[in-house]
Amino acid sequence: MVGASKAQTGNGPIRYGMVGGGQGAFIGAVHRIAARLDGEFELVAGALSSDPARAKASAAELGLDPERSYGSFKEMAKAEAKRSDGIEAVAIVTPNHMHYPAAKAFLEAGIHVICDKPMTSNLADAKKLAALAGQSGRLFVLTHNYTGYPMVRQAREMVAKGVLGDLRVVQAEYPQDWLTERLEGTGQKQASWRTDPKKSGAGGATGDIGTHAFNLARFVTGLTLDSLAADLTAFVDGRPLDDNAHVLLRFKGGAKGMLWASQVAPGNENALKLRVYGTKGGLEWEQEHPNHLWFTPFGQPKQLITRGGAGAGDAAGRMSRVPPGHPEGYLEGFANIYAEAARAIRAARRKGGKAGKDVIFPTVEDGVEGVAFVEACVKSSRKNGAWTKL
Amino acid sequence: MVGASKAQTGNGPIRYGMVGGGQGAFIGAVHRIAARLDGEFELVAGALSSDPARAKASAAELGLDPERSYGSFKEMAKAEAKRSDGIEAVAIVTPNHMHYPAAKAFLEAGIHVICDKPMTSNLADAKKLAALAGQSGRLFVLTHNYTGYPMVRQAREMVAKGVLGDLRVVQAEYPQDWLTERLEGTGQKQASWRTDPKKSGAGGATGDIGTHAFNLARFVTGLTLDSLAADLTAFVDGRPLDDNAHVLLRFKGGAKGMLWASQVAPGNENALKLRVYGTKGGLEWEQEHPNHLWFTPFGQPKQLITRGGAGAGDAAGRMSRVPPGHPEGYLEGFANIYAEAARAIRAARRKGGKAGKDVIFPTVEDGVEGVAFVEACVKSSRKNGAWTKL
Amino acid sequence: MVGASKAQTGNGPIRYGMVGGGQGAFIGAVHRIAARLDGEFELVAGALSSDPARAKASAAELGLDPERSYGSFKEMAKAEAKRSDGIEAVAIVTPNHMHYPAAKAFLEAGIHVICDKPMTSNLADAKKLAALAGQSGRLFVLTHNYTGYPMVRQAREMVAKGVLGDLRVVQAEYPQDWLTERLEGTGQKQASWRTDPKKSGAGGATGDIGTHAFNLARFVTGLTLDSLAADLTAFVDGRPLDDNAHVLLRFKGGAKGMLWASQVAPGNENALKLRVYGTKGGLEWEQEHPNHLWFTPFGQPKQLITRGGAGAGDAAGRMSRVPPGHPEGYLEGFANIYAEAARAIRAARRKGGKAGKDVIFPTVEDGVEGVAFVEACVKSSRKNGAWTKL
Amino acid sequence: MVGASKAQTGNGPIRYGMVGGGQGAFIGAVHRIAARLDGEFELVAGALSSDPARAKASAAELGLDPERSYGSFKEMAKAEAKRSDGIEAVAIVTPNHMHYPAAKAFLEAGIHVICDKPMTSNLADAKKLAALAGQSGRLFVLTHNYTGYPMVRQAREMVAKGVLGDLRVVQAEYPQDWLTERLEGTGQKQASWRTDPKKSGAGGATGDIGTHAFNLARFVTGLTLDSLAADLTAFVDGRPLDDNAHVLLRFKGGAKGMLWASQVAPGNENALKLRVYGTKGGLEWEQEHPNHLWFTPFGQPKQLITRGGAGAGDAAGRMSRVPPGHPEGYLEGFANIYAEAARAIRAARRKGGKAGKDVIFPTVEDGVEGVAFVEACVKSSRKNGAWTKL
Repeated sequence: MVGASKAQTGNGPIRYGMVGGGQGAFIGAVHRIAARLDGEFELVAGALSSDPARAKASAAELGLDPERSYGSFKEMAKAEAKRSDGIEAVAIVTPNHMHYPAAKAFLEAGIHVICDKPMTSNLADAKKLAALAGQSGRLFVLTHNYTGYPMVRQAREMVAKGVLGDLRVVQAEYPQDWLTERLEGTGQKQASWRTDPKKSGAGGATGDIGTHAFNLARFVTGLTLDSLAADLTAFVDGRPLDDNAHVLLRFKGGAKGMLWASQVAPGNENALKLRVYGTKGGLEWEQEHPNHLWFTPFGQPKQLITRGGAGAGDAAGRMSRVPPGHPEGYLEGFANIYAEAARAIRAARRKGGKAGKDVIFPTVEDGVEGVAFVEACVKSSRKNGAWTKL
Repeated sequence: MVGASKAQTGNGPIRYGMVGGGQGAFIGAVHRIAARLDGEFELVAGALSSDPARAKASAAELGLDPERSYGSFKEMAKAEAKRSDGIEAVAIVTPNHMHYPAAKAFLEAGIHVICDKPMTSNLADAKKLAALAGQSGRLFVLTHNYTGYPMVRQAREMVAKGVLGDLRVVQAEYPQDWLTERLEGTGQKQASWRTDPKKSGAGGATGDIGTHAFNLARFVTGLTLDSLAADLTAFVDGRPLDDNAHVLLRFKGGAKGMLWASQVAPGNENALKLRVYGTKGGLEWEQEHPNHLWFTPFGQPKQLITRGGAGAGDAAGRMSRVPPGHPEGYLEGFANIYAEAARAIRAARRKGGKAGKDVIFPTVEDGVEGVAFVEACVKSSRKNGAWTKL
Repeated sequence: MVGASKAQTGNGPIRYGMVGGGQGAFIGAVHRIAARLDGEFELVAGALSSDPARAKASAAELGLDPERSYGSFKEMAKAEAKRSDGIEAVAIVTPNHMHYPAAKAFLEAGIHVICDKPMTSNLADAKKLAALAGQSGRLFVLTHNYTGYPMVRQAREMVAKGVLGDLRVVQAEYPQDWLTERLEGTGQKQASWRTDPKKSGAGGATGDIGTHAFNLARFVTGLTLDSLAADLTAFVDGRPLDDNAHVLLRFKGGAKGMLWASQVAPGNENALKLRVYGTKGGLEWEQEHPNHLWFTPFGQPKQLITRGGAGAGDAAGRMSRVPPGHPEGYLEGFANIYAEAARAIRAARRKGGKAGKDVIFPTVEDGVEGVAFVEACVKSSRKNGAWTKL
Repeated sequence: MVGASKAQTGNGPIRYGMVGGGQGAFIGAVHRIAARLDGEFELVAGALSSDPARAKASAAELGLDPERSYGSFKEMAKAEAKRSDGIEAVAIVTPNHMHYPAAKAFLEAGIHVICDKPMTSNLADAKKLAALAGQSGRLFVLTHNYTGYPMVRQAREMVAKGVLGDLRVVQAEYPQDWLTERLEGTGQKQASWRTDPKKSGAGGATGDIGTHAFNLARFVTGLTLDSLAADLTAFVDGRPLDDNAHVLLRFKGGAKGMLWASQVAPGNENALKLRVYGTKGGLEWEQEHPNHLWFTPFGQPKQLITRGGAGAGDAAGRMSRVPPGHPEGYLEGFANIYAEAARAIRAARRKGGKAGKDVIFPTVEDGVEGVAFVEACVKSSRKNGAWTKL
């Protein structure tokens, strides 16, 4: 029996705060649901908006103690670090350019960080953050949430076990359509900051969703990217960042791949898809049907492995809450990252404690790699698609 | 923007207790996640098992105050009713035969009831419960959870608006495969009580999943069933209840239908599916791909309406938490029933308050109808499939 | 290698004639393509229409020798029987009521018959025809064309080998939408005769497509139908024959099933589908994706078997012309019936010769059973769905 | 009504011969079926194999007059040109390197040529052939058969009408898996010549299937390729030609694209797929489900257009033989090229006659472009993926 309650490991929920995520934001609410789903986290503090009125109203709506609704993340880090009942972790859900200063503040205050992706808006910040995180002794969890889907774990496990043989071809794609027209021109908040290089960094579609596709490919295959050749385009007039990225990939060891990220492909919502082919078989997974994984052993009939069904292993099982055929979705996958974070934080509560090897989440190193991927794409594209080392 | 936070309406969470759902149970944990997902409910009391040791251990695991972990639901109803901080609602998640006495106890104690389905193990109890609920002035919410899926709401709205014209044909089915072999013979808890007439009532597959298919058809079409002809079978040797139900349906007004429920159809996990056809068009929906709804207007190309995408209306929108293409699943649909219950309970907090018309959940009347459906199936099948009025 | 040429067995094509199938007809052209596809048949004579002018024009268009374009099938049977180069076989593709007299004429003239379905417009004729065919020593091939699909053969082979264990549940359906409105009122030829009891017989949707679904279920499972309970409806005002059939099935040996045929289900083109479940596994096949067969062994991952791919056996292989992934369709399936007929006719050219056991096509007995199915449906429905023996 | 007989335009079938396609070949049999399907062509001559014994046996099997079974294509061109009943057209179905000399011989003999793809094994030959064809006044039909699928025609028509707005992104792919292992090492004929540069030319997967994907993209979009950047790989040890091609595309006018062709992607049979996105909407088509076309107008629900169903226009309609829901497949699509060729040949029978504008088939110019595509891919890949003009 798949145990819906298995993540509830007792000793009281983990107190956490949030930076960003006030009214009008999107991803903040997703983080709160993900944190709440297994009862592992309790939201007790926030610097929810850079706009004081919005910050206050947002805190009230969420039932925060007004005293713990802060005007800035710096103030929050300082104040919470002093409290005996202060937060153990912070979720950073601001636009990209604020990730670095906020994460720095909390790590320095001895508080675990759960941070949205891409990790920073430039590679220099990313490297500094990695160094900082390493020194801090605190946890850094990057919410590349698609790695939380059970069948993504299943795929990773199968590759690691050699079921596919030696990998040859990796096809990753993440098409969307929401920026087909100039939505940022209407003032829509999500579109505005995502197409603004000051807030997003150098990558548009590349940074927002290309990093997801890249991270997913890396997570499942375990392959290291050697170099890439990119052709980035801003199809919508007046858009300063790419809204379509065509990228060729060369992995260490000889595997090759393609990555396509687009925000201008009508009919695509969040059509993240990964296909991996090796000498012995292939795997195909789509985010919009996340409970299914196609396994295609060479010379045998194709198999559809379902979450919790026959053929699904332990790596998927420990990420599941309900029986097969009852679909789990985006929020459950996101919550799995929080569940893994909770396990790691609980382990860290014990002096020098570490979570087991089966506890897996994207880290600050994945964050550095993601930002390096974006910068390499931009660099290659500016050099007319020259092969560029990561 | 789809608002992931919209259900969080403040004034503190609703205190609730749970009857059943201790260690080894399945649906209790689902109810707890559903209650927790939007932050609307707080679990503060429980009579989690009829086995005292298991009840105690379960309560500890869930972090309940030991004082509010009760040995029986009767004790719990009595004690909680007296407390100033007593529960406002109870979730009843026991095997079917205990639903009636437990619901009775809490309604009589002035506590709102959220109850799993089928509502009772026989029609007499169901009718008594309906009478009781009516007199109590308390809310009775039946967790026919599939009615919480956004695209089911979308389908209902489209039918109600006449988009399909006059309805003619309704095809409902719910095949599973988990009882293909005699799982109850191994002592598996879920299989054991579901195949035991003393705990389940007169229907096997009919009661466990046939009621879901029937309720879904009713919910979407708004049609009233006039009569049915059923052929129930227990294919597995020694199983006292049906594991496959073939049912013909006649609705008032002339529409006709078929309903198939099976627990012995290998390859089917929870393949609940509804197809509705009218003079102007059709709709098709599958539980395992719940974010999609096929709309087939006669003489026009088929349309795939997605949750939150173009073509999806208000009824679906208010049930959604994340943008289209990020799949929501079973737990979110289940949580939508709890979210609707929360709205109704908050309205009821205000003297004589009532939730708006857009707040919709299955009620005690739906529960009566579901049990009547089971009994009519059994009766018809015993009479060799004679047409039987509901 | 799948051999596209394997059916071409030499010794010159088989000379055949056609009754019906003139201008404005649909199925005649399909038969001609099917006959031509493998180069096994040559059309040399015809009584293409009961309207002399249309018969003549049709014959000219098809390049028939004017001398062999006949005014009636009787004349044709007589004349061709006398010719040294007369036809060896006739394809009868008229409306249903003409099948019997035409088939009778040709069998009596010693000519093999290939006849469209349903075999006759009433059971009495069907039985007489069966007797006639038995006495004639000629072949009678009924074009239940769906039995020609390779993956239908694959399914039949798997059931016969016991891969599914003992069969329990059979779900067959054939929904269409083309008669959702009163198309026959516009004079459309196909709709007109199909809704006219004088030409179609007692069944509407039941006869036209219900027989296909029934035959397919029989062909794949090998089960014999014991009895049925039917609820037939004419949803469109003024239509004298059913346009929707809901039928419960009981097979000898204990398996049960449902059959749904509809011409008023918007969004359905020719959505013939068969699902079969046994103690060890299940199979699912859809006519609109005929190159795929789902095989769902209990307790193992689902498998998608493709025509010509791994897992497909001999029975499918001998019905295939091109490699897997190059879809074969309706015409190829239809042509497979003709290819089997050609094998049988070539065998019969040798005195007393018989085709091998692997040569399989629907026969006059299947025709009798199909018409018996229609009449039992009508009888049961008139008795308010009473169980009726076939 | 879709007219299955519409291609049968009388005046007697077109006499044609075949070069290649003897026993053991694959594509020859496909051509023969395609030629036969509509009754438009009659095979009367052949140079079926370079091996005399095989040529003779093959001719006998196909029922050719022994006198018209030739030892070489040169002899055949010469002899047939002299006959009053000589062939009007020849189908060239040899390995690639023989296309050029054979086509040359027949064009010079005044005989129309129907030739398999890629047109030649090198660009120099292709250009010479184009010049020759232009001077000859004879027809040259290249069997890029996927352009014969009705829904491909539908897609082309929609793009041409501006339904998608200005095109931005074109994603083409054609993965297979049959060369995942070193099949050519076993002596398998198809694998052997396709991996032999002397017979195939410079491209492996690129030439065999990449040209199909490229041609399809060109055919549907009408866009002209400006340049490409390619990364070709031979993953299987000892294979001299690429078995995987990753290609970036830049079209004139600013659209961009990706093309992936692979013979080493387990689980893929002939998964040719095209996706096209413009400012107003998108289209998606898959060869393995050829009767369906997804149309995704921006800001509206997705539509599934079916062959012959609502939303399908004239361009698809004239390529269809049977009603919607009765799948047409690979052979019908192939036959559509032959049907178009027949229309053009019949028009050419009338002195100076030309077929109507609606008669469309791939020509010698498409052939040149396809071979140029292969050579550009090889050149770019050798220059480490430098952008290379076509």
